[in-house]
Amino acid sequence: MAVNLPLPSNLLPVPGIELGFAEAGIRKANRKDLLVMRLADGATVAGVFTLNRFCAAPVQLCKARSGNKIRALVVNTGNANAGTGEPGLAAARETCVALAALLACDAEQILPFSTGVILELLPVERVKAGLPAAIANLKSDNWQAAAEAIMTTDTQPKAASRTAQIGGKKVTLTGISKGAGMIKPNMATMLGFLATDAGVSQALLEKLVKDAADQSFNCITIDGDTSTNDSFMLIATGASGLQVTSADSPEYATLAAEVLALSQQLAQMIVRDGEGATKFITVTVEQGASVAECRKIAYSIAHSPLVKTAFFASDPNLGRILAAIGYAGVDDLDVGKLDLYLDDVLVAKAGGRNPDYREEDGQRVMKQSEITVRVRLARGTHAATIWTCDLSHDYVSINADYRS
Amino acid sequence: MAVNLPLPSNLLPVPGIELGFAEAGIRKANRKDLLVMRLADGATVAGVFTLNRFCAAPVQLCKARSGNKIRALVVNTGNANAGTGEPGLAAARETCVALAALLACDAEQILPFSTGVILELLPVERVKAGLPAAIANLKSDNWQAAAEAIMTTDTQPKAASRTAQIGGKKVTLTGISKGAGMIKPNMATMLGFLATDAGVSQALLEKLVKDAADQSFNCITIDGDTSTNDSFMLIATGASGLQVTSADSPEYATLAAEVLALSQQLAQMIVRDGEGATKFITVTVEQGASVAECRKIAYSIAHSPLVKTAFFASDPNLGRILAAIGYAGVDDLDVGKLDLYLDDVLVAKAGGRNPDYREEDGQRVMKQSEITVRVRLARGTHAATIWTCDLSHDYVSINADYRS
Repeated sequence: MAVNLPLPSNLLPVPGIELGFAEAGIRKANRKDLLVMRLADGATVAGVFTLNRFCAAPVQLCKARSGNKIRALVVNTGNANAGTGEPGLAAARETCVALAALLACDAEQILPFSTGVILELLPVERVKAGLPAAIANLKSDNWQAAAEAIMTTDTQPKAASRTAQIGGKKVTLTGISKGAGMIKPNMATMLGFLATDAGVSQALLEKLVKDAADQSFNCITIDGDTSTNDSFMLIATGASGLQVTSADSPEYATLAAEVLALSQQLAQMIVRDGEGATKFITVTVEQGASVAECRKIAYSIAHSPLVKTAFFASDPNLGRILAAIGYAGVDDLDVGKLDLYLDDVLVAKAGGRNPDYREEDGQRVMKQSEITVRVRLARGTHAATIWTCDLSHDYVSINADYRS
Repeated sequence: MAVNLPLPSNLLPVPGIELGFAEAGIRKANRKDLLVMRLADGATVAGVFTLNRFCAAPVQLCKARSGNKIRALVVNTGNANAGTGEPGLAAARETCVALAALLACDAEQILPFSTGVILELLPVERVKAGLPAAIANLKSDNWQAAAEAIMTTDTQPKAASRTAQIGGKKVTLTGISKGAGMIKPNMATMLGFLATDAGVSQALLEKLVKDAADQSFNCITIDGDTSTNDSFMLIATGASGLQVTSADSPEYATLAAEVLALSQQLAQMIVRDGEGATKFITVTVEQGASVAECRKIAYSIAHSPLVKTAFFASDPNLGRILAAIGYAGVDDLDVGKLDLYLDDVLVAKAGGRNPDYREEDGQRVMKQSEITVRVRLARGTHAATIWTCDLSHDYVSINADYRS
């Protein structure tokens, strides 16, 4: 069902990182549900996390360990360990203690991640029992299996690699992501991991991950539901020999562009695999007075169930887009100046139906699997783009059946 | 498909108002799609209207005519006359001019209303051609037919009556409403008309309609889509002999309570007939620091597609409610103090799963057709209630097929 989402191929190992997985039976038997990522000494790690006030126990630990010398990340699926109070925090800590003992490091050097059902206690004994198997198969070329091990309602693993020449060194970047529902990341998404063998100082890496998230994972939405577990992690091992030390250097600029390109690719993969998705929709709002108002309008369109079902039906019932623009909360918006395009088709002009608009033209674009909605506000120079998908019968089926 | 929504019965004429309808063929043949409400001399009318920036042409005219001595209201379905620019305004004006000629009044004394598809020009000739038939059958006991004449995707007409003794006079109130999708009124809903034979001055009626809307139509949501045409109108004919002249009088208090009760009944009828609805959900947030934050959290729960599909499935996957509370945007919310009830079942206590909570208890409540979600924030004395419905396959079907 995914929309133009290729299976991962040509995934490149990132020197300085090994990945191991296990079938721990956390919720269901016979599926990869546990992932360990071991980092070489000297790697730096930075992340951005959900702003949901019910942020999960592992997210709370990750935030507290920000800036520590991290040696491993551990991810389980099948249980979000969110809405679990103190027992949930204890379970997350216990997982880290067990892994630290196996890897001969400190528990404070482990970052835990969980994804799955909320409001149920993590079966920590099963997680711990799975760790030795995951460590036994640690390998640098396990990225495909790692992408599979973090899937929940995803229909496909999501992963990609890039290489670049930076400062005379060959630098590799590989990332994985998961998520198909409860997707409207606010700071990050649930879950994304991007590793590079570039070396980046902790302070610089914090900036890099935030900038990349803001233009990638923070620009997607499937259902408007911000998860309790969203996390996007950037890992820099330094094994390539490149050390980036200044945000003003050409090396930083190139690396940031590579990280952003890969982050956007991983974020868009989540939308392409959105629960029940049949269309991939790009919403661009231009000529706004601020980026914030452009984002507000773009999200309003991207979240409207009426707009999303019209896309599912390939029905050019485009007045629904105007309605969503109108209630976006931009109180001084002069709709009399606004233009609406569907790909190259000018649908509404100066706030009303374009006299030259023909329903056949709208119909033609609506039938495509990739569609761009473009809104021109004629009140400034700012713009924003959000990626989303349609709302289909399968979204309802998937979410009415998810736990059973 | 409607949830515990009885067919209208015992609708009472309101002295001072006559209603007439026609089959004007505006979008489809052989269905009532045009309504005229003629008011006796001396009636006052006040309304609240959508805050959608793309507010429809008729809404713009209604706002401009606020406070005029209104003699008639005219409503068409099948076309919203929104997103239609200047030609749309001209069409709405032309409708009023035609009706004014037939009723021997001024066009400025007519309020027009439209509901239906957005971004298509109103076929004004068909509307005008239908007016004589509507006027020919003007009667005071046409409320049932009037409720039918304003339906679009509604599966049932929505109407109710009340009577009260106020200031020694018998006062009658009858109202009709419509709407099943694009429902998250912001000031009012699409469409509600409530008439009484109490006499109320224009200034007092403006207050009365606003107060009633804030606690009725502004407390419901089906899909979070605020329509371009929402209008809630209160008509006071004065034919009962009662004249209410002060907001501090006991007569005003009684009348306001009656108007509110009927408004809530009409608003809840819209939710019960929500597109594809199988459950009627009351979301109450208590012990908040302000009404605004309680409403924010209640709407966040009521709009979450994941929460709504869980209700559809009768699946007590209640962590989704915690997630929706967490991303509602109350930034200083201490989730560690929060309790969550499903009817009388305490699901989450102090931010985590209640140790005594048993899934069977949640399951029992989720299977009901009427469910109350109660959230206690433990941070203040304010509260808010929102009424909503679930998200089912039929919602997608209805909105994927609406225009065809």
